[in-house]
Amino acid sequence: MQGGKYQIIEDGALAVKAGKLHWVGPRETMPAFHAREQHQLSGGIITPGLVDCHTHLVFGGNRSQEFEQRLNNVSYAEIAAQGGGILSTVRATRAASQQELVASARWRLDRLLAEGVTTVEIKSGYGLDEESELRMLRAIRELSESVPADVFATCLAAHGFPPEFKHNPDGWIDVICNQLLPQVKAKGLADAVDAFCEHLALSPAQVARVFDQATALGLPVKLHAEQLSSLGGAALAARYDALSADHLEYATEDDVKAMAQHGTVAVLLPGAFYLLRETQRPPVELFRRYGVPMALASDANPGTSPALSLRLMLNMGCTLFGMTPEEALAGVTIWGAKALGLEQTHGTLEAGKVASFVHWPLARPAELVYWLGGELPCKVIYRGEAQ
Amino acid sequence: MQGGKYQIIEDGALAVKAGKLHWVGPRETMPAFHAREQHQLSGGIITPGLVDCHTHLVFGGNRSQEFEQRLNNVSYAEIAAQGGGILSTVRATRAASQQELVASARWRLDRLLAEGVTTVEIKSGYGLDEESELRMLRAIRELSESVPADVFATCLAAHGFPPEFKHNPDGWIDVICNQLLPQVKAKGLADAVDAFCEHLALSPAQVARVFDQATALGLPVKLHAEQLSSLGGAALAARYDALSADHLEYATEDDVKAMAQHGTVAVLLPGAFYLLRETQRPPVELFRRYGVPMALASDANPGTSPALSLRLMLNMGCTLFGMTPEEALAGVTIWGAKALGLEQTHGTLEAGKVASFVHWPLARPAELVYWLGGELPCKVIYRGEAQ
Ligand SMILES: [Zn+2]
Ligand SMILES: [Zn+2]
Repeated sequence: MQGGKYQIIEDGALAVKAGKLHWVGPRETMPAFHAREQHQLSGGIITPGLVDCHTHLVFGGNRSQEFEQRLNNVSYAEIAAQGGGILSTVRATRAASQQELVASARWRLDRLLAEGVTTVEIKSGYGLDEESELRMLRAIRELSESVPADVFATCLAAHGFPPEFKHNPDGWIDVICNQLLPQVKAKGLADAVDAFCEHLALSPAQVARVFDQATALGLPVKLHAEQLSSLGGAALAARYDALSADHLEYATEDDVKAMAQHGTVAVLLPGAFYLLRETQRPPVELFRRYGVPMALASDANPGTSPALSLRLMLNMGCTLFGMTPEEALAGVTIWGAKALGLEQTHGTLEAGKVASFVHWPLARPAELVYWLGGELPCKVIYRGEAQ
Repeated sequence: MQGGKYQIIEDGALAVKAGKLHWVGPRETMPAFHAREQHQLSGGIITPGLVDCHTHLVFGGNRSQEFEQRLNNVSYAEIAAQGGGILSTVRATRAASQQELVASARWRLDRLLAEGVTTVEIKSGYGLDEESELRMLRAIRELSESVPADVFATCLAAHGFPPEFKHNPDGWIDVICNQLLPQVKAKGLADAVDAFCEHLALSPAQVARVFDQATALGLPVKLHAEQLSSLGGAALAARYDALSADHLEYATEDDVKAMAQHGTVAVLLPGAFYLLRETQRPPVELFRRYGVPMALASDANPGTSPALSLRLMLNMGCTLFGMTPEEALAGVTIWGAKALGLEQTHGTLEAGKVASFVHWPLARPAELVYWLGGELPCKVIYRGEAQ
């Protein structure tokens, strides 16, 4: 898989050296290496390790009770009055120790890894105070040490406004810009900075303040944009050379043009679209027309996408958004990697890239998309090591 | 879980004897048994083994190629001209040996069993000739011998019309009634008889002929009804005291009344609804109002629901059809069992019933519905034996 096309090598071979791909090509053209180990994988297909480029896997508690209440027609107002919604996750996250955050995230992450994910992005954003945001980021770094996956940490302190800043939202932006981001940078706790641009969250002007500071600190940016309404967030993000703009159901042609111009990846998140029973689909045709690469991700989070499978998102990307299986698979490999700035080292099977790949007992790549739900058995190799 | 309600026992205990539940209740009230083995399952919840009461798990080939073509905007006409659609599955199934059918079904069935299914219905219906339908049913019986699950076999020769009978559809009904069903009965190859009532399949009059013969042979009936249009099939099935009527997106109040009167279960199949991007939802409110029990099933089949997870159907039943998590869970336990005529022996945790149950590392039953996709780790006990 290169440049978003399958680029299938029939009867291929891989040589791995020191955790990297040393050689990839048709088996009959492979040079005679002095191999320490040799493995014959007969039948099936090999893909790059999958990339889940947008998750909120670290959080306290879960929201199954609220999920059940909504299905029993308890109103949003009533749930909010009981302390439900995102603030219940903020409370549970603030109350959780780093160790507890790591343990609960690990259980969820293990589900994703079991189906071939070898690179995963995880955001903070449920702490919403300085200490809890830093604890979330430390939990993400701790996960990174202990799981067979490359973990990319994103600071999403600008996910929304803490209850303490209800009447002074710009005060929270001040805290993010003046206190949190400099510490995050100094301690190396994040690889990028994200924000949520929406009527109920940050305005474009507030996002710009966060992005100005991130840029000044040399941290790349990305943005939750155009999920529920059109605010020009995607175009704003593109002007900051954002790695990605994510969700994008309401993105306009101007947004898409700006993204194309700045190389910003469109990260599509069908899990939340499905669970919220949205009807406005992201403008897949426009992304195609302007050559904006589309990534797919799980958006794993306790409120709108408690997803434990990236492969289900392949099916949903096709079934709900009209992507092709080829686009969907590119969306969790090369374009998922590009959405994390990792396209030089991840996302395809090419000499020099990390030796993270998956052997699936399937006849065709489209079967990864076709089989609905469950966990496909597969063999995962992470940086040259069989898992 | 009894009568469709959670009926949770906190800190409960189970005693198992000879593959059956001997005692179930709060741990502190358990009599002092002389137990050969004792297991402490701390944390988590125990549910009855799940029942998937509607599957087409046995088939030759798969349709991932056609799935991909459709997403690449190849027209139905073009796909049909290439020999695609259900007839491609009929060709592959006819060409497959019993052993091949068992092996490929086993791979799919194992995915369902991994997430707690201990009772599964499987239909024939892709043979569409006498010999191939019998071979499918023998494959289902063979699966039954080798998997840790109770397998219920349904003869669905009346799935549609074989190409050989294109110009003489009633001739195929003659074959079913006069040749196939008597053999199926004599050889004990099926536990029920199903048909597909739809404009492109059997008319209500043709269904009635099949059901008359099944009834005369003492075989219970069930029906694919009201999936794409309203033909009164569900009411017809009810008049034959059908175990279930399945799909039901277009069921009317008269259908629902008839089902209530005859104790016919409504089997809802959100996988096909999702994959076909249907918009007409089954009348869940009417089923509630008239007290018609709702079951949920995977409909696992190569064309419209290549499902490998019953648990995903719980989420889809709630998200897409508006069922509550409690209804969804009842739909894959007690009402799934009732849809197979097994409500006296399966589907709840009660003394005298089969000792098939599942231990989930979850805090609340709604989490079974809430977590989206993937495979939840769980411990399955089938008829008293840990799997
Ligand atoms: Zn998000
Ligand atoms: Zn069916």
